[in-house]
Amino acid sequence: MKAFMDKNFLLDTPTAQHLYHDYSAKLPIIDYHCHIPPQEIYEDRRFENIAQVWLGGHQVLADGSDFYFGDHYKWRVMRSNGVPEEYITGDKPDRERFQKFAEALENAIGNPMYTWCHLELKKYFGYEGVLNGETAQQVWDLCNEKLQNDPNMTVRGLIAQSNVAMVGTTDDPVDTLEWHKKIQDDPSISVVVAPSFRPDKALNIRKPGFADYIHKLEEVVGRKFACADCVVKALDERLQFFVQMGCRASDHGLDYVPYVPTDVDKATAAFKKAMAGETLTQEEGDAYTTYVLLALGRLYKKYDVVMQVHYSCLRNVNEAMYNKLGPDTGYDMIAVTDCSTTLSRLLSALTATGECPKVILYSLNPSDFDMLGTLIGAFQDDEVPGKIQLGSAWWFCDTDDGMYQQMRTLARLGLLGNFIGMLTDSRSFLSYTRHELFRRLMCNLIGHWVENGQYPNDEKALQKIVEGISYYNAKRYFRL
Amino acid sequence: MKAFMDKNFLLDTPTAQHLYHDYSAKLPIIDYHCHIPPQEIYEDRRFENIAQVWLGGHQVLADGSDFYFGDHYKWRVMRSNGVPEEYITGDKPDRERFQKFAEALENAIGNPMYTWCHLELKKYFGYEGVLNGETAQQVWDLCNEKLQNDPNMTVRGLIAQSNVAMVGTTDDPVDTLEWHKKIQDDPSISVVVAPSFRPDKALNIRKPGFADYIHKLEEVVGRKFACADCVVKALDERLQFFVQMGCRASDHGLDYVPYVPTDVDKATAAFKKAMAGETLTQEEGDAYTTYVLLALGRLYKKYDVVMQVHYSCLRNVNEAMYNKLGPDTGYDMIAVTDCSTTLSRLLSALTATGECPKVILYSLNPSDFDMLGTLIGAFQDDEVPGKIQLGSAWWFCDTDDGMYQQMRTLARLGLLGNFIGMLTDSRSFLSYTRHELFRRLMCNLIGHWVENGQYPNDEKALQKIVEGISYYNAKRYFRL
Amino acid sequence: MKAFMDKNFLLDTPTAQHLYHDYSAKLPIIDYHCHIPPQEIYEDRRFENIAQVWLGGHQVLADGSDFYFGDHYKWRVMRSNGVPEEYITGDKPDRERFQKFAEALENAIGNPMYTWCHLELKKYFGYEGVLNGETAQQVWDLCNEKLQNDPNMTVRGLIAQSNVAMVGTTDDPVDTLEWHKKIQDDPSISVVVAPSFRPDKALNIRKPGFADYIHKLEEVVGRKFACADCVVKALDERLQFFVQMGCRASDHGLDYVPYVPTDVDKATAAFKKAMAGETLTQEEGDAYTTYVLLALGRLYKKYDVVMQVHYSCLRNVNEAMYNKLGPDTGYDMIAVTDCSTTLSRLLSALTATGECPKVILYSLNPSDFDMLGTLIGAFQDDEVPGKIQLGSAWWFCDTDDGMYQQMRTLARLGLLGNFIGMLTDSRSFLSYTRHELFRRLMCNLIGHWVENGQYPNDEKALQKIVEGISYYNAKRYFRL
Repeated sequence: MKAFMDKNFLLDTPTAQHLYHDYSAKLPIIDYHCHIPPQEIYEDRRFENIAQVWLGGHQVLADGSDFYFGDHYKWRVMRSNGVPEEYITGDKPDRERFQKFAEALENAIGNPMYTWCHLELKKYFGYEGVLNGETAQQVWDLCNEKLQNDPNMTVRGLIAQSNVAMVGTTDDPVDTLEWHKKIQDDPSISVVVAPSFRPDKALNIRKPGFADYIHKLEEVVGRKFACADCVVKALDERLQFFVQMGCRASDHGLDYVPYVPTDVDKATAAFKKAMAGETLTQEEGDAYTTYVLLALGRLYKKYDVVMQVHYSCLRNVNEAMYNKLGPDTGYDMIAVTDCSTTLSRLLSALTATGECPKVILYSLNPSDFDMLGTLIGAFQDDEVPGKIQLGSAWWFCDTDDGMYQQMRTLARLGLLGNFIGMLTDSRSFLSYTRHELFRRLMCNLIGHWVENGQYPNDEKALQKIVEGISYYNAKRYFRL
Repeated sequence: MKAFMDKNFLLDTPTAQHLYHDYSAKLPIIDYHCHIPPQEIYEDRRFENIAQVWLGGHQVLADGSDFYFGDHYKWRVMRSNGVPEEYITGDKPDRERFQKFAEALENAIGNPMYTWCHLELKKYFGYEGVLNGETAQQVWDLCNEKLQNDPNMTVRGLIAQSNVAMVGTTDDPVDTLEWHKKIQDDPSISVVVAPSFRPDKALNIRKPGFADYIHKLEEVVGRKFACADCVVKALDERLQFFVQMGCRASDHGLDYVPYVPTDVDKATAAFKKAMAGETLTQEEGDAYTTYVLLALGRLYKKYDVVMQVHYSCLRNVNEAMYNKLGPDTGYDMIAVTDCSTTLSRLLSALTATGECPKVILYSLNPSDFDMLGTLIGAFQDDEVPGKIQLGSAWWFCDTDDGMYQQMRTLARLGLLGNFIGMLTDSRSFLSYTRHELFRRLMCNLIGHWVENGQYPNDEKALQKIVEGISYYNAKRYFRL
Repeated sequence: MKAFMDKNFLLDTPTAQHLYHDYSAKLPIIDYHCHIPPQEIYEDRRFENIAQVWLGGHQVLADGSDFYFGDHYKWRVMRSNGVPEEYITGDKPDRERFQKFAEALENAIGNPMYTWCHLELKKYFGYEGVLNGETAQQVWDLCNEKLQNDPNMTVRGLIAQSNVAMVGTTDDPVDTLEWHKKIQDDPSISVVVAPSFRPDKALNIRKPGFADYIHKLEEVVGRKFACADCVVKALDERLQFFVQMGCRASDHGLDYVPYVPTDVDKATAAFKKAMAGETLTQEEGDAYTTYVLLALGRLYKKYDVVMQVHYSCLRNVNEAMYNKLGPDTGYDMIAVTDCSTTLSRLLSALTATGECPKVILYSLNPSDFDMLGTLIGAFQDDEVPGKIQLGSAWWFCDTDDGMYQQMRTLARLGLLGNFIGMLTDSRSFLSYTRHELFRRLMCNLIGHWVENGQYPNDEKALQKIVEGISYYNAKRYFRL
């Protein structure tokens, strides 16, 4: 029996252990897609207690409404254990909330949460034991002492001790990027903090709030929009500003990827209708979204910005809880979509004029991995090895099984050697251990193939592949 | 090499062996969903030969029509081996039918049938050998001697030696439950035999026989129905009767889960049209079914009855054989459906008014497991840990691979520790060995995580999880 | 650590090694579905260099257009490594193209291409080393010397040393089969080279070129067609000719399997419309295709021809590259389809009149395997064991994972013992090593079940199963 999460955790063979410890573990982290607030980096925030870091909570906004924030992965673990909501997003004391979480965790055998929590406790808090209902008090005391007093446990300290070279935040086109600016102007911050361009609200023409958002965008660029191209032009300006500020990637979060025949007239007609408060058919909406997606794709190519597409998600499916807590509170699920045709047409249209940017495709439904693994192969070219990427296992797929499935699919249908690797997609500064977990699994998979006689034990080739996936491929892909 | 199906069958590690033998194997069986006839329990039926038990046969009904009954899993094995139908459902002598089955079984390597048969031969008949064409005569003699003479081989004897605490049968709302009554009145029967409420025929408004069935239901409650609410009211009365008789669960068998905007007027309009013999559009039918499903969901909550939903099945796809043999004769298959939206809306509507009952979701298509694994997490609350369950691997998924996939999916997307575990879904009294198979796989999976350093070797926690999944979680869930 | 691809490559247990070396490896190959040109067999073609064999190239046709041919699997590997197209399908020297491929291969860890290339180098060229950028020159020299001078390295030599008993080519109904005739008349050729009937162009009524193709068919049978039945009658004649020439199988390549209510009038109406150059709706087109598919199915039954159906493919998705290079150049992908209902209705209709032929179903989307595994079980009968087959893992599924998945699915839902096994689906005479790879995986899987106590260590039964899947089942199925 292997000891619980020891040095060679998940590294089943000598080759895997060698590849991880001697190559992968030593390299910096490029966390090219996450959701951490740059303000907290600049202000070098310090947390008060582990419940605050792990479970978040809620605050009353200026308009008197409640805003709930925190790790909805953990909230789901608690709800699945029958914990009353008052301990999850409610006003119970942090110590009691932490107790309930610790008790729920015991049932999370086989869940990545079990691994993540213990990796974080080990790496950042030096805790080598097991967190459960009985040890919760001890862990609480240990963590809070460190969080409050250890100079390495501020946000910047956590980033530094995690050996993070780059952080790709997720930002709205209307954002001023003031915190990115401050970070860049501060010579004491060495990590690259690059904004990413996420214009979802300008594309979601059929969702509530579209017109309000467009008005915000109008305000930012200082003029009114009468057409779809006006929106595109405004986004172009904002994208140029983002690029000046170091932006290397965009991101699109879509329930599904639309692609319908469109042109500027159809797109503008839809835009005007939406701005007038009228209801659009799906086809009308898709005509607009397709048009803007294509236009943005070309701009990404022009400015060498990577295009990320996240899709196949059903959001806020529990209406009562959505009304109570708002979005991103643990009530989303995997959707079943067929975007094989729309995605391939989108890339085909961009390729037809030589304007296809680097693209990373992430589906939340692992049933899509094989389809995507073959789609990317149909759009590769010589811009960069692995120009079109099968994105790292995302959200509900971010598990041992999911990461193995993503890597095996990419390996068998494309070239694993050109994979740009892991990202945290996280709001937490303790999540960098997910890179450790990914690297262990990746080295274990490669080690398995070598030990099983499926790939030669060629030190140079293996080092190149492992270091590439850990660091160098992303460095090349994002021009760092 | 491990010996064929020995004591440590499927238990690869010392931890797995310990968890199975010292905890799981000792606990009673709660078989909360099956199709065994309560009459056979009350009458303590004895079988004549092993072909009768395993292969069934057919009988001529009062109206002169043929009724085919038996284990369609085994019929498919025979058909896949090119066995003529006369040996399967036809009139060939039982001994010859058994011979053909034994010969086919040899080709069933990797099929759960191979394991099931040998587990049954071992446990109930003490046969330690291999069944094949050459040993068929010996097995035939051995089994039949026991079946005819061994006092433990009657239905009650089989239940007793299998350590079954509870049997959940599947019953139509119009059923009198007379056999359940007799069983309850018989002090010599200690196993709990609880009826389950399966009102499919009252919901399948577009299938042949709907009006006839409604007339039966009218007869049972003693009044005519002029509206959808009349049906609901009648089902409510029957459900109350079922609950008085010990019912703890309902069951819905659906090709797909419908959910369309509906109200009492739409539902009644569809109902009247159907009763008048007119053809309904899918949307009209779904309006009725959605309405009744919602109404029933609320009633289940009211009476604390678990709601089971089985879906994604295409039935009777071989029309010629369906015409010849009728339903449930081995001509069904996995359907491809997308019920992500409809299922989530159904649960959301029930949750919105605080009337969502405990729900178990079973899809016949394993491609749905990930989607369902995330859906259940969006509707958990503090009524009971694991209130919404990802159902145990069902029917075509009831295999080693399927059970591992279901458990791994649940583990990574929810809390395996709150899983209510296995059921037989069977018509046979020898099928309790499927609980043994499940428990071995479950202990092996958990043992693997422990031995691999992914979960601590914490005796108390492991005992709680293993005993919970084997017995205590179902006991709590079904209030036994 | 196991040595790289040694004698016991992929054979993890003594049982697997025994089954492979002592039974499977010794049997001839029945390659019942491939795309090799019979002309090259008859002419006993010799290749000039390894780039010609592996990477192909292009030639200028009589009409001045370019025709690109070669292994698009390898082209995708190169494109995924960022190799410029001029080295892939362009005019760079063969030696430089080979260099680029060798360098790309290094990144193909976990890709079947890695295994295929090294199996071919080992078996046909005696090269025991590793192919990469540094060894490319050495491999180039070695291979070319053999290709140019070794008497066993002509097409016939390769077939002979591969122990191939039968080759099933893929041929258009209008084909004269002149090369098949010459092969049959040549007593020095012992391998059976059987044509397969692939009438896609007569069924693809909505694709460009349909009318032109019909005119070709008219010419071949010497009369004009005024109706759908005229097409069927012509296909019947051609099929009879094919059968006389040794045809044992047909093949249908379909994006999706259509099935709509149809009759001769609907089919003829669609046919006339298409011949008049008008655009058909999907339903009109499907009415024609369904009609012809049903008619052909009945003819296959009549002449005892196996019906193969390959589906769930999106072809030529990269429009720019399709325009440049034409079809089959590496720009296809897995489609997402739901053919559960259409396929089952097609087989049900054929079964209803006792006219269902032997059928092999191949989906390009592995998500369909479970559905298909249950569908085939609903149409088995006593014509031959395993009459309806789940086809061997095809194209993008032809990987370690894909083959294991196909075999495990078949094993758990049907009878693996009746599986007809592997085919190359290849255009290359070096691809017979794919049978070796398949047989190793098959023996490893079966060996695993035996060593794990899930199937008895019964020499006779195991020999029968392994030899059946390797050779005898296909021999029986295709009446060799």
